[in-house]
Amino acid sequence: MMPLRYLILADGDFSPMTSKTANAFIRYHPERVVGVIDRRLAGRTVESILGFGGSIPIVGTMAEGLALGPDAVMIGIAPIGGRLPEDWKAGLLDALDAGCDVWSGLHTFLSDDPQLAARAKERGCTIHDLRRPPPSLPVASGRARHVAPFVILTVGTDCNVGKMTAQLQLTHALNQRGIRTRFVPTGQTGILIEGWGTGVDAVAADFIAGATEELVLKAASDQPDVILVEGQGSLNHPGYSGVTLGLVHGACPDALVLCHQAGRSFIGEYREAEWTAIPPLSAYIEAYELVAGMVHPTRVIGIALNTVDCEDEEARAACEQARDATGLPVNDLVRYGDNSELVDAVEEALQNYRLAREDAGAV
Amino acid sequence: MMPLRYLILADGDFSPMTSKTANAFIRYHPERVVGVIDRRLAGRTVESILGFGGSIPIVGTMAEGLALGPDAVMIGIAPIGGRLPEDWKAGLLDALDAGCDVWSGLHTFLSDDPQLAARAKERGCTIHDLRRPPPSLPVASGRARHVAPFVILTVGTDCNVGKMTAQLQLTHALNQRGIRTRFVPTGQTGILIEGWGTGVDAVAADFIAGATEELVLKAASDQPDVILVEGQGSLNHPGYSGVTLGLVHGACPDALVLCHQAGRSFIGEYREAEWTAIPPLSAYIEAYELVAGMVHPTRVIGIALNTVDCEDEEARAACEQARDATGLPVNDLVRYGDNSELVDAVEEALQNYRLAREDAGAV
Repeated sequence: MMPLRYLILADGDFSPMTSKTANAFIRYHPERVVGVIDRRLAGRTVESILGFGGSIPIVGTMAEGLALGPDAVMIGIAPIGGRLPEDWKAGLLDALDAGCDVWSGLHTFLSDDPQLAARAKERGCTIHDLRRPPPSLPVASGRARHVAPFVILTVGTDCNVGKMTAQLQLTHALNQRGIRTRFVPTGQTGILIEGWGTGVDAVAADFIAGATEELVLKAASDQPDVILVEGQGSLNHPGYSGVTLGLVHGACPDALVLCHQAGRSFIGEYREAEWTAIPPLSAYIEAYELVAGMVHPTRVIGIALNTVDCEDEEARAACEQARDATGLPVNDLVRYGDNSELVDAVEEALQNYRLAREDAGAV
Repeated sequence: MMPLRYLILADGDFSPMTSKTANAFIRYHPERVVGVIDRRLAGRTVESILGFGGSIPIVGTMAEGLALGPDAVMIGIAPIGGRLPEDWKAGLLDALDAGCDVWSGLHTFLSDDPQLAARAKERGCTIHDLRRPPPSLPVASGRARHVAPFVILTVGTDCNVGKMTAQLQLTHALNQRGIRTRFVPTGQTGILIEGWGTGVDAVAADFIAGATEELVLKAASDQPDVILVEGQGSLNHPGYSGVTLGLVHGACPDALVLCHQAGRSFIGEYREAEWTAIPPLSAYIEAYELVAGMVHPTRVIGIALNTVDCEDEEARAACEQARDATGLPVNDLVRYGDNSELVDAVEEALQNYRLAREDAGAV
């Protein structure tokens, strides 16, 4: 199958921090994006908004976007609660009329909408609801504890701080060093980028850990050296903490990388609400290690700092501060590239893990 | 509406520890149970198995059960993963033929089974799937922090240790003392007993806390003195911990009651797996207070011990040991009745909460 070329719908919300799915897909597959819809920014380029993405055009309407010849339309933003903005429907019907597939990570399944479903059928197009859970999932039983590869999970101080991006950058950096990796997507953006995975935030609550466990076991069956699991939410997020903990206990990570956005001081700051003050990184390290360790012992081996909002000097200072506060290696893998003390720390943890397994007679 | 009289299906699994839904319903509404189906125990009484429930008969087949004249059949056991044992279907079809409604808390929705649904329609009966989530749920935003009533949540060292029962007993004990209460059911058994609630373990993972928050706000709108929320799972359960944490952060409890079964040493001991050793109670207290406190400060104010398996002397010793280990009031509210140091502790915590609110000018 030829990789699809997408028109990305991000109307009213395309920006470095809000249009998470759009941005990540553009970062990793810019050649597969024909354009972005956001009427506020029509006429500008993606690069001028995100700082990457080159000359991909931003257009104001679905008609202009469809004129760019996409194979499919991707919903590129994740409204809180994951529902479809009512005024997008007409545009999606036009896209289906033009023969485009639709890829969506919304909680509201577009293929359950009678009008959209009928139109898709009529036009021979497919609506892909990335959050639709697999039909049968197990209850987790801690089986991921026993996989041979070294399992790393990114955990966060909030939603939308860069857990997936840090993990993808880390995957790339380890590959560069000749380490065999398997990235495990647990959300719609990761699934779009990697082409497999399960949106663990959309499964029935009893199966969060079970869905994660299945993904880790599947990744382990490819016998990589390292499995890198995409984290979700945050342990202290008033809405999503359950997803986070289920993911932690389902994945049974041997190591955690704590992700934080420099300068963010409240949970949910980039959305409507400012719910909860973000405590010091050391409080997160204590809480994640304590609660994860109740099922499988683990530790935070480094901090992935997201400094997208910072000037250079500010970014350097933020890394220094996080290093001083935690005593751990810190890096922004996007800003400073892949070769860093953070990647060294992961490689060292991998070596120690292997030695411990050899000592235990497991290999 | 006249309260329905139930025939309870618990075939192969009726016992003090396994048939959780059946047992709890019988404890609180024995007058509404015409019989229990378990072919292993046919001819015996419920009292002879559970130690309560009087002369309610246990029968071996659906036909014998239907002869007792129930209005409805209730699925009284919760198989792990919550699916329908294939061999029950014929019996349920017979029950529908006999004009019975069906009440089920399984994850597999019986009303989605084409054969069962068709038969129900044909016979004018209703299949109630208690775990079917409400159609529209919010993402939680910590709103339960601000309700006026004192909110208590039961938390556990494992599933199936007595979190719902302890909370129902506590509700009763507070009512006896003239304190206005509202019990909040979060699982199928509580919903059956109380007639409202949401099965928070069956909602899409992103909405666990949101579903809980809605229930607490609804309970608060009745202006009780105390809201008692039914807990689910355990913070260190490999499969269900996500539900537990979502519930904790959605409910924003002002106080926790930690529930434990005396003598249980592994998570899941009463099911197939022995996953994880149960750490000391003090480790649970630390972990629950730490993680809950990341959204809303709370503390464990007492221990509800389930001593159903113990002889009298053993039960007394277990309570004493838990008291020594934690410094907290301990009681088995079922064995020793409602008037106890645990209820005193709750009443004292309520008084302190009121004083603190008065000091803060909230009332």
